Amino acid sequence: MKQLRQRWMPLLLIAGLGLGAASATAAPESLQDVMKRRGLNPQDLLAAAKTYVPTGKRDEFVVFSSGGQSGQVIVYGIPSMRILKYIGVFTPEPWQGYGFDENSRSVLRQGRIDGRDITWGDTHHPAISETNGEYDGQFLFINDKANPRIAVIDLRDFETKQIVVNPVFKSTHGGAFVTPNTEYIIDAAQYPAPLENRKFHPLEEMNEKYRGGVTYWKFDRKAGRIDPKQSFSIEMPPYWQDLSDFGKGPSDGWSFTNSFCSERYVGGIEKGRPPYEAGCSAKDTDYLHVVNWKKAEQVFKAGKTRKINGHDVIAMDTAVKEGILFLIPEPKSPHGVDVTPDGKFIIVAGKLDTHASVYSFEKIQAAIRAGRFESKDPYGVPVIGMKDALHTQVQLGLGPLHTQYDAKPCVAYTSLYVDSQVAKWDYCAGKVLDKISVHYNIGHLMTMEGDSTKPQGRYLVALNKLAIDRFVPVGPLHPQNHQLIDISNDKMQLLYDMPLPLGEPHYAVAIAANKLKPGVRYKVGTDSRTDRPHPGAVRAGEQRIEKKGNQVTVYGTLIRSHITPETIEVDVGDEVTIHLTNLERAQDETHGFTVSTYNVHASVEPGKTVTVKFKADKEGVYPYYCTEFCSALHLEMMGYLLVKPKGWKPTKVGLAKAHYTEADYRATLKKVADTQAVIDSVVGYITSVNYKDFPDVVAMVEDATDQLGRIPDAKARHEAAAAKKDWEQANLWAEQVWQFQVKAADLGLRAKTYLEQSGARKTR
Amino acid sequence: MKQLRQRWMPLLLIAGLGLGAASATAAPESLQDVMKRRGLNPQDLLAAAKTYVPTGKRDEFVVFSSGGQSGQVIVYGIPSMRILKYIGVFTPEPWQGYGFDENSRSVLRQGRIDGRDITWGDTHHPAISETNGEYDGQFLFINDKANPRIAVIDLRDFETKQIVVNPVFKSTHGGAFVTPNTEYIIDAAQYPAPLENRKFHPLEEMNEKYRGGVTYWKFDRKAGRIDPKQSFSIEMPPYWQDLSDFGKGPSDGWSFTNSFCSERYVGGIEKGRPPYEAGCSAKDTDYLHVVNWKKAEQVFKAGKTRKINGHDVIAMDTAVKEGILFLIPEPKSPHGVDVTPDGKFIIVAGKLDTHASVYSFEKIQAAIRAGRFESKDPYGVPVIGMKDALHTQVQLGLGPLHTQYDAKPCVAYTSLYVDSQVAKWDYCAGKVLDKISVHYNIGHLMTMEGDSTKPQGRYLVALNKLAIDRFVPVGPLHPQNHQLIDISNDKMQLLYDMPLPLGEPHYAVAIAANKLKPGVRYKVGTDSRTDRPHPGAVRAGEQRIEKKGNQVTVYGTLIRSHITPETIEVDVGDEVTIHLTNLERAQDETHGFTVSTYNVHASVEPGKTVTVKFKADKEGVYPYYCTEFCSALHLEMMGYLLVKPKGWKPTKVGLAKAHYTEADYRATLKKVADTQAVIDSVVGYITSVNYKDFPDVVAMVEDATDQLGRIPDAKARHEAAAAKKDWEQANLWAEQVWQFQVKAADLGLRAKTYLEQSGARKTR
Repeated sequence: MKQLRQRWMPLLLIAGLGLGAASATAAPESLQDVMKRRGLNPQDLLAAAKTYVPTGKRDEFVVFSSGGQSGQVIVYGIPSMRILKYIGVFTPEPWQGYGFDENSRSVLRQGRIDGRDITWGDTHHPAISETNGEYDGQFLFINDKANPRIAVIDLRDFETKQIVVNPVFKSTHGGAFVTPNTEYIIDAAQYPAPLENRKFHPLEEMNEKYRGGVTYWKFDRKAGRIDPKQSFSIEMPPYWQDLSDFGKGPSDGWSFTNSFCSERYVGGIEKGRPPYEAGCSAKDTDYLHVVNWKKAEQVFKAGKTRKINGHDVIAMDTAVKEGILFLIPEPKSPHGVDVTPDGKFIIVAGKLDTHASVYSFEKIQAAIRAGRFESKDPYGVPVIGMKDALHTQVQLGLGPLHTQYDAKPCVAYTSLYVDSQVAKWDYCAGKVLDKISVHYNIGHLMTMEGDSTKPQGRYLVALNKLAIDRFVPVGPLHPQNHQLIDISNDKMQLLYDMPLPLGEPHYAVAIAANKLKPGVRYKVGTDSRTDRPHPGAVRAGEQRIEKKGNQVTVYGTLIRSHITPETIEVDVGDEVTIHLTNLERAQDETHGFTVSTYNVHASVEPGKTVTVKFKADKEGVYPYYCTEFCSALHLEMMGYLLVKPKGWKPTKVGLAKAHYTEADYRATLKKVADTQAVIDSVVGYITSVNYKDFPDVVAMVEDATDQLGRIPDAKARHEAAAAKKDWEQANLWAEQVWQFQVKAADLGLRAKTYLEQSGARKTR
Repeated sequence: MKQLRQRWMPLLLIAGLGLGAASATAAPESLQDVMKRRGLNPQDLLAAAKTYVPTGKRDEFVVFSSGGQSGQVIVYGIPSMRILKYIGVFTPEPWQGYGFDENSRSVLRQGRIDGRDITWGDTHHPAISETNGEYDGQFLFINDKANPRIAVIDLRDFETKQIVVNPVFKSTHGGAFVTPNTEYIIDAAQYPAPLENRKFHPLEEMNEKYRGGVTYWKFDRKAGRIDPKQSFSIEMPPYWQDLSDFGKGPSDGWSFTNSFCSERYVGGIEKGRPPYEAGCSAKDTDYLHVVNWKKAEQVFKAGKTRKINGHDVIAMDTAVKEGILFLIPEPKSPHGVDVTPDGKFIIVAGKLDTHASVYSFEKIQAAIRAGRFESKDPYGVPVIGMKDALHTQVQLGLGPLHTQYDAKPCVAYTSLYVDSQVAKWDYCAGKVLDKISVHYNIGHLMTMEGDSTKPQGRYLVALNKLAIDRFVPVGPLHPQNHQLIDISNDKMQLLYDMPLPLGEPHYAVAIAANKLKPGVRYKVGTDSRTDRPHPGAVRAGEQRIEKKGNQVTVYGTLIRSHITPETIEVDVGDEVTIHLTNLERAQDETHGFTVSTYNVHASVEPGKTVTVKFKADKEGVYPYYCTEFCSALHLEMMGYLLVKPKGWKPTKVGLAKAHYTEADYRATLKKVADTQAVIDSVVGYITSVNYKDFPDVVAMVEDATDQLGRIPDAKARHEAAAAKKDWEQANLWAEQVWQFQVKAADLGLRAKTYLEQSGARKTR
């Protein structure tokens, strides 16, 4: 590094680089000074310029990354590599209220297996919904390897809407991947096991009783949910199915799933047998499974299936007989089978081989049409000869693993696990174009929309499994390292090292940011997990508490800065259900809700209605409050749950008086008048410029208007109290007027700053 | 923005800025091109250069941020603002195995309240342990507001070691803050409630029966744990205690806690009473609590306490009588009380006042010594006159909130919530020096080591509560926005917008990165949650399965790439306990472990031993596997849990044979020999340079040597099998030799790349 600096510095000086001399700012440190102090060379500066996103600007692409064992999905921006959100999927997450309110719990409950709550997942491969083979940004799917499940996330609100348990597998790996119009989502088994639930067979019966397979989940785009009844699986030999992909263009209607341990080896190192790692990698080839899914769909619809655990499974022999399933040898222990954007080729790389193998869909079809098979596997599945199916093989390096595509025709990128490199190569001509080293041990890689029919090129992310020395150490458990690489030029350029602070991402997909159009608020009273009106929703003024027997139901609301109701009285042992509607319309004006020690939490975004539920099993006093710093007086947004002992009788002592005087009331009125002057001046500014051209400002103005709209009621109350010389009530309601003013002023000032900084122009 | 660009571009051209002409690289896009394409002005480029951290370099400061309702701690680097880790604290987190293995569950179980598991927290204020008032980087403390608890995190491994429940409060807010030598950690109540557990009093008895207070948690640094028996609390009036700080230097021995709603107002909007937000902000002042904690400690040690819920509480009247507790009026609804680095002043800002108030410790002491009190509060606590205690008041703007300090004497920074600004000001001279706008609505702010006796200056982070339009939209629930600001110059400069993807941070602390010295591995067989040897740990060769009645105990190990044992047979209904020791020594070589659908997960870092436990209540076949992508053959790192039905008898079919031939064996031996040649060449390179100067490489070499050291055993096995012409065993054990070689080669290649890129020099 020292050498590099010495080499670059004179160049910099010659080029006159640095803002010090030419800049109009008063910044005492020039660009040159900064580079020197921080040891940056010009290549670093170029990378900084390519990745830095200044305030107010936005990232170009959005990545959805699996969170691995965190059971979540990670959303981040490219090129800044800033993480924008962790979406709770299989793991409860309290910030989002996920698993802490009843509505999201109903989603998590769909993922129960064998009567057990499963409170995590090993998320593996995310897929974005496609239209005509292009990412459409509407839905995201991701599978759980440990507990065989798949989840549906709606990208209108970035929330998990559905979890579906795979009825026949004990683990899944080869999903999620979608058909070009998202009719189906594929998932494949990982470790073979008996397909029947709770069925025991010893390992000695691996060949006869253990099975793999693939599942085709039918997606109902209108409902935004998987339809399990319209979904089916295909039974496959007990090879360890690995990853999958769907055909596209000419290969549409077909799917591909590779495998490893086609040796069907059973380990047992504790008994002196070599472990799985030895026995599962002993042969030179494993099998690529080639499936005619359109024909399989017909067979399923024709009812030629076997019901296993209530799910439709096409038996292996049916699949063979109907011409649905074929095998082709592939270099051993592969990870990733990737159809080229034009749908003509399928690329497989074997981790323990140095080549990438490019299979030709046309050749595969020719062999199938001609009935040209070199053999059958032990289960009678026809095997197409490797030579008959290969377009070419290219030697890439040690540990080739996963391939993605460039916008440029014929250009692919493959990760090399053992070499810790990315190879750029031409799969048409069969030659290596460039290589770049990464740190360390890259698993999957990803290009922009790189597994769609229209890859966008530009950037590549190397999903490295180790970070080792790249970041400030944070203990024995390290973050992973996603490295951003510029692929717009002939030579790849490393741009950025990004630590992954939570989870071990396996795979990621990236979409152009402008294809995502999420909402910022819900229709008032929406249950976001069903997308339907929430039966517990109420409007302002309709709040109430109902008690029937030991069931207490609260219909409450949230708005800056109070919860209605502010007192909930119950008897010890009551079952308490609290529905809360956020009455805000303003973007980002989320409220939270919790009750001390009752282990519930809700995140209530604008318009949403959420339910929390608990048994008030201990008498006492329990504060509840808004957990979001939603406004200047967010700490005052609270109330008390009073859990009364059995048989408790009120002592009938009135609430203490504060003894406010008329002078206090007059002083508050003065403050209100002063604040109104501030508001008037801000309103004057805003309406003097073209604020209607700024949707975010329009939303703030609406929101401020809403706050100001609440004033007449409070004003009527303080004037009525004053007329009765009840100075306490008069003063307090006048204070409430001021609180509404403060919120409106807060919004107004925010809008004013926004307009000033965004170059709003005077209109009058 | 357009205007800015137009203004800057000519300057850039004049300055000849851009690498295109002068650069030696072949990059087709020059710096100038990139700036133009991305719309960056020179100020942006300067910010990029100030924040970009190239691969292999590290951040200067490390931030520990509360995760808010996520119940976690967020660790990130400055100036890059890259998040390095989320630490599981109050919320189970499966990637870390936190709450999914027995060892960490024992920590979470300490946080049970009223017999309930609390599976989240509302983390508020982190504090780093101090020595002589300076951050020492050894421990981190953080409180949970919703469920009154405090947690201890050891910064040797960044793991949560202890959770302590506050025995007398129903919510806490005013912690954690430490004494200059971390003898005590303070936490303060938020919402008043009866101190006695499960004691009900109606709100009509707020003044008489509801109480606030502060708790002084005794920290045993040697044990690395809080000692609840040596800890005590002070009863306080039912003002809503807010934030706290300890004195330092001249004010050491004292602590300060501010408050709001000293009106003791009780809301009830549902009954027509003005809400809390109106009644709690009606008076112009609240109370700053001033406590002589050294005297309180003596009173506690003298036994002058009342036991409440088994905890020592100094009653309010005792505190008054002993001269422990005093009050001073402070501007209303404050948030933050911050002692200056020299310990001479205490700064408080009231959110609903426009001033920051600078109290003089000397004046406070003079008043106390002179017995000069303006009044007593309704509970008999002496009140020092504001005038008698103030050094100065400075008008800062709307919504002043929290103050931190610069390395420069007398310079403070205060967040302005309503103005969405940071004010830089001089608290000695009492004048504003600079202001900068932030987006939007800043809560806390933080400077580097800014609440210690030696603030480091350089950077400030604005913890903004809203992001609104700053990032690519990700649905109705937005990230927050931490903005990095350069404070090394007279004018503050905004450098970076950082989205917070999970959680709503309340407060953060930053320490110089070089003060953190975490380990990268454990002593083999460590239970990381107790820091003691784990009774279930075994070494290689000692693995075993024990069965006693329906209790099955597995003593297993993990190493690339197999789990020992590879088969666990149990009877349905058995209670299964699996202890797993990671035998790796290599940095970052973590293994994970799960059993399909049994809802357990362990993260087992090098040297750690972890236990998972479950009841095998459903018969069937359940794969288990390593959940980390730990090596090229990580997918083969698996085994089967076989849950046999009652009365099942083995069918005694032997495992299927693979029918390997002598030719297969010879081919594998050839592969082994070829691979050895690669290894020899890498070893040749490594030993030809000064690799011992690179500790990370030395660790890799140790690890590779470890893998190679396993070869003789496997070699002996394949040779013995070959002698008996058992070609299957011979071939498979030879394959195992090759697997060890592949792992050694992987490490060797990684070390070689490291050395080449780090400028290692030839030594022979």
